[in-house]
Amino acid sequence: MKTLKIIKIGGNIIDNDAALASFLEAFAAIESPKLLIHGGGKLATQLANQLGLEVKLIDGRRITDQATLDLITMVYAGKINKNIVAQLQSKNCNAIGFSGADGNTIRSKKRPVTTTDFGFVGDVEKVDTKILQVLLDHKVTPVFCALTHDKKGQLLNTNADTIASELAIAFADQYQTELYYCFEKNGVMRDIADESSVIKKITTQSYQGLIDDKIIVDGMLPKLNNCIHAVQKNVYKVCIGKPEMLFDATANFTTITK
Amino acid sequence: MKTLKIIKIGGNIIDNDAALASFLEAFAAIESPKLLIHGGGKLATQLANQLGLEVKLIDGRRITDQATLDLITMVYAGKINKNIVAQLQSKNCNAIGFSGADGNTIRSKKRPVTTTDFGFVGDVEKVDTKILQVLLDHKVTPVFCALTHDKKGQLLNTNADTIASELAIAFADQYQTELYYCFEKNGVMRDIADESSVIKKITTQSYQGLIDDKIIVDGMLPKLNNCIHAVQKNVYKVCIGKPEMLFDATANFTTITK
Repeated sequence: MKTLKIIKIGGNIIDNDAALASFLEAFAAIESPKLLIHGGGKLATQLANQLGLEVKLIDGRRITDQATLDLITMVYAGKINKNIVAQLQSKNCNAIGFSGADGNTIRSKKRPVTTTDFGFVGDVEKVDTKILQVLLDHKVTPVFCALTHDKKGQLLNTNADTIASELAIAFADQYQTELYYCFEKNGVMRDIADESSVIKKITTQSYQGLIDDKIIVDGMLPKLNNCIHAVQKNVYKVCIGKPEMLFDATANFTTITK
Repeated sequence: MKTLKIIKIGGNIIDNDAALASFLEAFAAIESPKLLIHGGGKLATQLANQLGLEVKLIDGRRITDQATLDLITMVYAGKINKNIVAQLQSKNCNAIGFSGADGNTIRSKKRPVTTTDFGFVGDVEKVDTKILQVLLDHKVTPVFCALTHDKKGQLLNTNADTIASELAIAFADQYQTELYYCFEKNGVMRDIADESSVIKKITTQSYQGLIDDKIIVDGMLPKLNNCIHAVQKNVYKVCIGKPEMLFDATANFTTITK
């Protein structure tokens, strides 16, 4: 089975022009078929401030009203996505920008209102890889922003980590899929203050122990749940760490397997 | 030869939610392979005002400094393009949004500075239909916004009419290409005040006479030059008129042929 690398980058790369350029240089050089998923970074918040829009967060999650949805559609699908695509083209990586609406690739359902109304936030229902597969076969690299649609004309804000894992799961029967979450730390650490305490391997077996021992807590918990879900759904491996993990054989990072 | 319809819409449709929805409904129902190109409408200017950006126009053309380029990338490639794509998906038209950077489809060159520095404005150099052809073969409808790139990482603001004609020209050896410019009038009129005075047929032969007789003047001149250029480059026909020309056999509009 051919390998497909699915790589997610977030604010620590997107918000730093030099870090982004150097990441994209290395990304463009990856030879196997690949997909890139990017989050939004600080730009949406900056623009919201400039426009006098109030950013509403509940438990660290943005509440997406109509004005906020318009704003992130402009920032994520417009400015960030198209600039990444243009930069990749300059590095001879033939990229095409995607939201989940494009090619009907990711359909989601507006999150039901319970105690909280998250607004125009979508939970992924269905990934259709057909058109993406055609593009990969033609050596095109899809670049996804964190937007999906409900197939009824509504765009929906969707977590970029989830988009990455759902894409990896959807391709798992056609490729040996490797999912890479790039973030600002070396991976999952036994001691958050000690960058050298990276846990190199996590399996579905060892995972519960790490939760019981309170090594995986707070923001890492949903992130890791997402990873475990992916390997349970036949993603070959999930790696978490600094972007160097993609290019540097000596890098320290966390690998999650079934 | 199969027919390919290439349709450009502008502000009169984009700025009006009801007009846009009804246009997209009819567009989605067109059976032959098709491409949509959209301009920007008033939204970019509105957002510029909200952000306190000065809109600079010379001869009706926007001067595109860095802040303006970021703004139109957000509005054209983000908000307008993705909302059109999501709406088309809801009407079972499998659309994918494009700038010229996506798939390296339209490469342009930054306009040289002469007496005027237009800023980040690109003149089209090369259209590559390869990926678009693959998508059309899979019944996907590309939706273009008015941005191109220089293949060196720079996005460039490019006239939407030109993008439409260059795409039509590039496809002319693979399809019988029909290029439709939708605007607010019934077409080219002998008397601008009389909507019934539409000139139904213009050919490369009759064109010069219409210029000599000062029937084609002002803003219509570059528009029509663009059309004549297209038919000279083997575009089968160019139609100018209200969007009804696409769907209503009794509509009055102007057709330009070689």
